[in-house]
Amino acid sequence: MELSQTVALLARTPATLNALLRDLPDAWTRQNEGDGSWSAFDIVGHLIHGERTDWIPRARIVLTQGANRRFEPYDRFAQVRESQGKSLAELLDEFARLRAQNLATLRGWKLSERELALEGEHPELGPVTLRQLLATWVAHDLGHVAQTTRVMAKQYREAVGPWRLYLPVLDR
Amino acid sequence: MELSQTVALLARTPATLNALLRDLPDAWTRQNEGDGSWSAFDIVGHLIHGERTDWIPRARIVLTQGANRRFEPYDRFAQVRESQGKSLAELLDEFARLRAQNLATLRGWKLSERELALEGEHPELGPVTLRQLLATWVAHDLGHVAQTTRVMAKQYREAVGPWRLYLPVLDR
Repeated sequence: MELSQTVALLARTPATLNALLRDLPDAWTRQNEGDGSWSAFDIVGHLIHGERTDWIPRARIVLTQGANRRFEPYDRFAQVRESQGKSLAELLDEFARLRAQNLATLRGWKLSERELALEGEHPELGPVTLRQLLATWVAHDLGHVAQTTRVMAKQYREAVGPWRLYLPVLDR
Repeated sequence: MELSQTVALLARTPATLNALLRDLPDAWTRQNEGDGSWSAFDIVGHLIHGERTDWIPRARIVLTQGANRRFEPYDRFAQVRESQGKSLAELLDEFARLRAQNLATLRGWKLSERELALEGEHPELGPVTLRQLLATWVAHDLGHVAQTTRVMAKQYREAVGPWRLYLPVLDR
């Protein structure tokens, strides 16, 4: 986990999702994989909730090294409530704005190796370092971009006909 | 497979990969998943090769309805040779240029339902329609964007520590 590489990646996610999703027909962005799974719209809402409540707030808990270093449990369904009535374009703007603010905060901290090794307490996973938290922020972004494209690809699962055999993303 | 939705998606892939990859450190873009697997750099090369030899050339074979409608087998390793000595920025530019040309060709055809139902012969899969070919073009794009982010996420498989449990993309 090299901090400048981590920031370089985190800075790109809003523009990546913007390039992929903005102004696409709802047929792409509002469909899910069935059964309460997430659409692209839901995923952007989830990323916004993470900007507000997860990464930087948890990093602050670690950096403060107070008596209680236990993170708040993360609400995986908050976006259902928080995204209601918003357009995808609004969500993309909100995500870009919050991410830029959070990266400004992160850069401003000029974290040392010592600070990156400080620990917090994950409610389920136990002790975790700030370095692991920041690496997870990146992997979480990338996993959700992968999920977004997979959910969209599945809309053509039948349409590709026999090519389905060659497209593992359609059956993942 | 609705043609305008297909084109809307295909038009976004170059900008999506550009937003994700341009000017990222090589540590992100040149690493693979081990054992001859592909890096982000290799994947963009593969997409370029598809623009040159796969989608539109195969669509032409179908539309011509000549005596031989069998597609040329696709070379999955052409990019190793063709990307040699190029920078990722050059590949991203080349992909964007070729994709824009190919979509201009596709739009220019103003395909009818009758034409979308015409068949070609896949060397392994047998008879396939033009409609299936175009749907596959989309799913192939999305699958490779998913792959790109997965390959990059794996660079942090160890760095995330115990969070690996929550990040299925790291072990896919």
